[in-house]
Amino acid sequence: MQITTINIVLQYMLSKAQSKHIRSLTQQKFREQHQQFVAEGSKIATEWLSSNHKILKIIANKEWINESINLIAKHPEAEVVEVTEQELMMITSLQTPNHVLLVVAFPSIVPFPTSANKWYMALDSIQDPGNMGTLLRIADWYGIDHVLCNNHCVDIYNPKVVQSAMGAHIRVVVHYTDLELSLKQLKLPIYAAVLGGNNVYDFGRTDSGVLIIGNESKGISDTVLATATHLVTIPRKGGAESLNAAVSAGIFCALLLPQ
Amino acid sequence: MQITTINIVLQYMLSKAQSKHIRSLTQQKFREQHQQFVAEGSKIATEWLSSNHKILKIIANKEWINESINLIAKHPEAEVVEVTEQELMMITSLQTPNHVLLVVAFPSIVPFPTSANKWYMALDSIQDPGNMGTLLRIADWYGIDHVLCNNHCVDIYNPKVVQSAMGAHIRVVVHYTDLELSLKQLKLPIYAAVLGGNNVYDFGRTDSGVLIIGNESKGISDTVLATATHLVTIPRKGGAESLNAAVSAGIFCALLLPQ
Repeated sequence: MQITTINIVLQYMLSKAQSKHIRSLTQQKFREQHQQFVAEGSKIATEWLSSNHKILKIIANKEWINESINLIAKHPEAEVVEVTEQELMMITSLQTPNHVLLVVAFPSIVPFPTSANKWYMALDSIQDPGNMGTLLRIADWYGIDHVLCNNHCVDIYNPKVVQSAMGAHIRVVVHYTDLELSLKQLKLPIYAAVLGGNNVYDFGRTDSGVLIIGNESKGISDTVLATATHLVTIPRKGGAESLNAAVSAGIFCALLLPQ
Repeated sequence: MQITTINIVLQYMLSKAQSKHIRSLTQQKFREQHQQFVAEGSKIATEWLSSNHKILKIIANKEWINESINLIAKHPEAEVVEVTEQELMMITSLQTPNHVLLVVAFPSIVPFPTSANKWYMALDSIQDPGNMGTLLRIADWYGIDHVLCNNHCVDIYNPKVVQSAMGAHIRVVVHYTDLELSLKQLKLPIYAAVLGGNNVYDFGRTDSGVLIIGNESKGISDTVLATATHLVTIPRKGGAESLNAAVSAGIFCALLLPQ
């Protein structure tokens, strides 16, 4: 019989300085200054702790720590703080705090693979954090591992983006870039999601390409649209003026990517 | 030459009682008590004012009233109040108030058409208001004009649902009902969106059916799942554990409904 002993150094109170630091990470300028962001909630924390990402702080209630001891032990470099629900309430950016909050280090920068023959997603000025997270989750589901964003897109480490992406950041690399320039460099078919383009059902599936999704109210900007080789539209049957940006991205992936 | 004079009775200040009443409509119990809800923002207000729905109050800034005078005149029964941005700020449930807020009367109840041969959407315990609104917007886009909800679903007149549905309520009728019972009465193929079911690409399109979408974390409950004739799954290519409920509904509509 083999007995494994797991040693974890536990801290039992959150200092004022720690609280202040964590709360500051709701703001992009502090996230960039410290190269850190926050991931909250049991499901998302489990995803991050199971990955190879560098976890800096694990702040959780007693029950969660007890249940997740093996996962925590995978990160000996992380500071582990056991807190009460009241303490979690002080630092959460969720409406109701959810057992655990992680402080995660920004991943190291990966260059954009301009030569690979696969599918990419390009996001032009996506503003809503929920949409951005959902778009990354779609990319993750369809195995699109590089997403291009212009600088008008919401920051992917915004707490609401992290929340709705459900761990997509772990597998999908996001590049903030000049979209027009980057799209021109890719020698791939470029599909722009627009209203009033060609029926998406008239296109066949292809092994590689780029799907451009535009801003929630203004759509794709003219300069980015000019790089497109195909304008594609989901045919409408009812009365809605448009579909949500993330929903349409999901439908285009289901219809254009290899089955 | 014909000159048309438009007369609108304008009120110039929001009374304390009016403000209090409007703010109370963020709560479901007051919405049900008064049979009223709030629709906010220029785009959504325009949709509602263009419809045949009974509008009770139009509360807007001077510029919006001037631009929308013809639309306002279509609703002589509505109380029109010109307010400042500060006054709008007091009653909005948006983060930044957006020119106009309407108080709308609940539509009259339409019976559920159990005999019609078309597509329906059935929602089992959809909790997130943004998802609910997006699901109604998808139904609206695909011409699904009746949606079934069980009583664990979020209220469709929640301000965030109204916001993300983008006017879908005008064309889509939502029935809160016992899903299990209602689904059994429909003599149609019933497709349950699940993880680990049959590949959706292996099914053909059909002219009529029901698409069941389950709760964001727990999926479809066992009793509702038992009514399904087909378990359908969107094949996964990447690492995400699941897709967002509304995104998967959009993909199923794109693959199962008539093209």
